[in-house]
Amino acid sequence: MDPRLKAYLETTLKEVSIDCVIFGFHAGELKVLLLKWKGTDSWSLPGGRIYLDEAVNDAVIRILQERTGLKEVFLQQFYTFGETDRYKKFDPMVLMKKMEQTFGKDFYDEKYMKRNVSIGYMALVELEQVVATADWYTDECKWWEISAIPDLLFDHNHMIDMALKALRRQVSYQPIGYNLLPEKFTMPELQRLYETILGKQLDRRNFQKLVLSYDILEKLDEKRTGGAFKSPFLYRFDKDKYDKAVENEISFTV
Amino acid sequence: MDPRLKAYLETTLKEVSIDCVIFGFHAGELKVLLLKWKGTDSWSLPGGRIYLDEAVNDAVIRILQERTGLKEVFLQQFYTFGETDRYKKFDPMVLMKKMEQTFGKDFYDEKYMKRNVSIGYMALVELEQVVATADWYTDECKWWEISAIPDLLFDHNHMIDMALKALRRQVSYQPIGYNLLPEKFTMPELQRLYETILGKQLDRRNFQKLVLSYDILEKLDEKRTGGAFKSPFLYRFDKDKYDKAVENEISFTV
Repeated sequence: MDPRLKAYLETTLKEVSIDCVIFGFHAGELKVLLLKWKGTDSWSLPGGRIYLDEAVNDAVIRILQERTGLKEVFLQQFYTFGETDRYKKFDPMVLMKKMEQTFGKDFYDEKYMKRNVSIGYMALVELEQVVATADWYTDECKWWEISAIPDLLFDHNHMIDMALKALRRQVSYQPIGYNLLPEKFTMPELQRLYETILGKQLDRRNFQKLVLSYDILEKLDEKRTGGAFKSPFLYRFDKDKYDKAVENEISFTV
Repeated sequence: MDPRLKAYLETTLKEVSIDCVIFGFHAGELKVLLLKWKGTDSWSLPGGRIYLDEAVNDAVIRILQERTGLKEVFLQQFYTFGETDRYKKFDPMVLMKKMEQTFGKDFYDEKYMKRNVSIGYMALVELEQVVATADWYTDECKWWEISAIPDLLFDHNHMIDMALKALRRQVSYQPIGYNLLPEKFTMPELQRLYETILGKQLDRRNFQKLVLSYDILEKLDEKRTGGAFKSPFLYRFDKDKYDKAVENEISFTV
């Protein structure tokens, strides 16, 4: 067995691990970061193990930083996956056999393949700030549009569904957008973000009225120019007020 | 070591377990079910281990049924606790030493005392239907008012705080009350439930108007009699509409 891999497996928890649904928003589309496993055509969410002396909330920060280069990210648990048939769709040992092409024979030992409970975290990131970085066991790290996500390994499609549901819930008690939009954005861009998350069209006037009533936006004396239509004003979040609204969980319904 | 305990520890997951915050509502007060450990004055949340071949969501149903006698309960995960210092407040081996008075010397082996990640579930139950049942390692099982909860073992006070926070969030996207109130209830009783969960007074008229607008209540042709004041009408939930609102996560803001 690969000695570095063995050392990693021996110093991390065996029955619990982490998977991350990293959402990014770009050109009006919600996207998720996925990894392709070396020597296979199989994609999965980024994830990792937890060191024996490491808090779960620290492990996920480490894992996220390794995959995206980002340090300060809005991260939250959304669900812990504890079914017994999480590997039903794809036997991990079949996957390991395929990966032997890259890593050599017996690089993995079946005894480490235990029943595993995975803590699902979601992160909202500004896509353009991310340096997507593949793992030692993956050779590609790519953003996929929500609507075009392929059949993933294990229960990872289910994980994305659950994360999306949690994200939709979140919109009802917290503002969203600070980590997903660039610093300055237009009202139509913010509306498009909400529409993408909620999966439905929103009335332009009602949205604007509601979102301004939360008193977390600062209207700038600048306009987005260069578009085909009338130039819209730019806004940015008032970070103090935004953070307060996140903290106080002001009811947020669109 | 106690052989039955050993058998249990050998057939369950070692690094992950479950803790339950069971909320009940009675006489206008929100309460939580707590257990007192044998031979100690220490209280904790009810919880348990997960069998190697048991889904986490099945384990929690089993544990809840053992403690409350209830089978069909509204149960949901609210957070998974993965700090490294979860036992900081109280060394479990000190607890085990105290319990030796009841179970005899060396009933427990320190080697089973590993770092543990706990999946927190909350349940909303109708308090009067519960037959609170102590565990093999506990000798009392009692409802405590939220405002009077003692200093609990491990991180269990923190768990209750997090469960309350989740319950408050839930009010913003789902109706609440079906499992907490008796079948028939008055509008002031429903309002009191919301006020207790949200920790704030609500305007009577606004509350009634809002809650009726959700179209999940059935006004009965009966009144609550026997009180000192004007007899209020009784209501019950229209279960189909209620379930649909829970399923659809209709925005629920009070």
